[in-house]
Amino acid sequence: MAANIRILGFGFSLRAGSYSRIVMESAKSLLPPGAELELFDIGGIPPFNQDLDSDQPQSVKDFKAKIRGADALLIITPEYNYSIPGYLKNAMDWATRPPSDNSFDGKPTALMSSSNGMHGGSRAQYHMRQVFLFINVRAVTKPEVFLATVQDKIKDGVFVDEKGRDVIRRLLSNLVKLASEGKEK
Amino acid sequence: MAANIRILGFGFSLRAGSYSRIVMESAKSLLPPGAELELFDIGGIPPFNQDLDSDQPQSVKDFKAKIRGADALLIITPEYNYSIPGYLKNAMDWATRPPSDNSFDGKPTALMSSSNGMHGGSRAQYHMRQVFLFINVRAVTKPEVFLATVQDKIKDGVFVDEKGRDVIRRLLSNLVKLASEGKEK
Amino acid sequence: MAANIRILGFGFSLRAGSYSRIVMESAKSLLPPGAELELFDIGGIPPFNQDLDSDQPQSVKDFKAKIRGADALLIITPEYNYSIPGYLKNAMDWATRPPSDNSFDGKPTALMSSSNGMHGGSRAQYHMRQVFLFINVRAVTKPEVFLATVQDKIKDGVFVDEKGRDVIRRLLSNLVKLASEGKEK
Amino acid sequence: MAANIRILGFGFSLRAGSYSRIVMESAKSLLPPGAELELFDIGGIPPFNQDLDSDQPQSVKDFKAKIRGADALLIITPEYNYSIPGYLKNAMDWATRPPSDNSFDGKPTALMSSSNGMHGGSRAQYHMRQVFLFINVRAVTKPEVFLATVQDKIKDGVFVDEKGRDVIRRLLSNLVKLASEGKEK
Repeated sequence: MAANIRILGFGFSLRAGSYSRIVMESAKSLLPPGAELELFDIGGIPPFNQDLDSDQPQSVKDFKAKIRGADALLIITPEYNYSIPGYLKNAMDWATRPPSDNSFDGKPTALMSSSNGMHGGSRAQYHMRQVFLFINVRAVTKPEVFLATVQDKIKDGVFVDEKGRDVIRRLLSNLVKLASEGKEK
Repeated sequence: MAANIRILGFGFSLRAGSYSRIVMESAKSLLPPGAELELFDIGGIPPFNQDLDSDQPQSVKDFKAKIRGADALLIITPEYNYSIPGYLKNAMDWATRPPSDNSFDGKPTALMSSSNGMHGGSRAQYHMRQVFLFINVRAVTKPEVFLATVQDKIKDGVFVDEKGRDVIRRLLSNLVKLASEGKEK
Repeated sequence: MAANIRILGFGFSLRAGSYSRIVMESAKSLLPPGAELELFDIGGIPPFNQDLDSDQPQSVKDFKAKIRGADALLIITPEYNYSIPGYLKNAMDWATRPPSDNSFDGKPTALMSSSNGMHGGSRAQYHMRQVFLFINVRAVTKPEVFLATVQDKIKDGVFVDEKGRDVIRRLLSNLVKLASEGKEK
Repeated sequence: MAANIRILGFGFSLRAGSYSRIVMESAKSLLPPGAELELFDIGGIPPFNQDLDSDQPQSVKDFKAKIRGADALLIITPEYNYSIPGYLKNAMDWATRPPSDNSFDGKPTALMSSSNGMHGGSRAQYHMRQVFLFINVRAVTKPEVFLATVQDKIKDGVFVDEKGRDVIRRLLSNLVKLASEGKEK
């Protein structure tokens, strides 16, 4: 029924065994029928330099091509120092440059955050919502997905928390719905 | 009278001819007597990876050593996509890690922001204030320095706007005062 | 062509000669064809008290009935002390209570802010965007309308700034478009 | 040893049996020696109207006189709709007006938040921190006090959670220290 929706997932941290990467990987089993999720590793993207706007690094070109090729985006943000991790914001900064080539423009986008503490990364998530206003994604607003004490919810490399899995399932369902509307038009 | 206060300045963007770097350079002439300002270029700092906590890259070690050696910090943040530039947040993320070795802890810190638009980077600045709560700097809160349309306020490589120069002068005066109190104790 | 869209406008301050009220009044002449704008004065709404959830004051009942009867909302927020004015947030708090009777739920909503300073109320506006996430309005995200130095843009009781009028016109057009989609379904 | 420090506490909600009021009341037993805490009920303060700047209502005059008479402030904010409750922000708006008569100016101030959910009112608290920048209080920044699921931590009208009581105790200790420094000068 639904168009085949290809989702690009990114944002997980760079360390081996990253919890946010495990959550993102686990999200593959929570997709509605007809949707698929591909992961993109932003680890190779260097610090942003505006002087390279007309000749961006290959890793950035790859990231932007993946974003453009996707029907929808799924971002997971850890929280560092009460805000978005610098490496994630940096990758997104590149992908919006130059202004005439903002790869996020109009893209259906869903957001999750995770942390080892009780707030589940909410501080990072609200900063990201403000970023969304400028980069002009079409953001899914409900449900908000805050994954608290994520380290306790992973077993054998899978995110197993039932309540968490359910809210991710609903988020993905809303994301696919939004992306499908766009495709039909 | 005042103790000799050494200030470390960072945050300016990586491109050649960066306006925020020019502002920071110009701040050297706005210091109160007995204070000095050294600039640190964070351009060489790679994307954060927690796996390297016990053996951080040399560029990070250098940054942290400079922070620790300073009596006070002066941060200038441009605004990218309605928040802190990723490259700046990324450098700060490294400098707070691991938790037992947060180089910002208790450091007197002043903040400026600049932009080409009318808001002078205020969105980035409020996000940075939230970061300050976690990294536990002793932040100067007044005056708030928002440098709007900064591109029009630079002449021959110097930040010449009199109103802007005056507010930076007052910010630096308050920073040195705060740092001096700490030194006397 | 478009369905007849009834918009409810509120948020302007309580003083006589309120600039934000003048802006809201002036917005009536900037509507797309087939849309109308009615103003609601929240001045009579008392401080929120949860004990009255089951028997809210008449002024609150009136406000909620007006919200429910409208196809879309247009909010203008002044900025007080770097956030949303208390009297406006208070009226909105009532209108979301009790949780089973949140009158904002799903309502197409556009936002403007105004101030006497250079930032045009942006700080209040970003706080309001966070409120929108909870109260679950369907928010128009573009254009963002920041009306700076509003006191200089009013002549004979009309908001006359052409650039400002144009951005409000585009905001209202997007609001009506969003509300029309909802009506057709 | 310490000067006698008089603290004014406010912010609790208006309903009978308010959890935030119980927390505030319980804070009296957590004060360091030589400090006292008086509660102020802001329930009687009407919606702000700038036209009354030169003749503020009696309830506002009382509030401002209490603030001025105190050596320090303790604010507790519930969270409504992801921000500061309107009734609380409204009382604070009055107390900062007119600009030449901002009763908060320079006042040592500590902040707590509470909620029935898992985040303990953090969203309201960060909005309040931004307000603090403008109203120019001298804010205690550590520890941050987020009281989550507060309804489960009250017994016989007392806030009994040991971890919560301990963090409030440390907050009050830091507040009294800050206020004492001011008094000695």
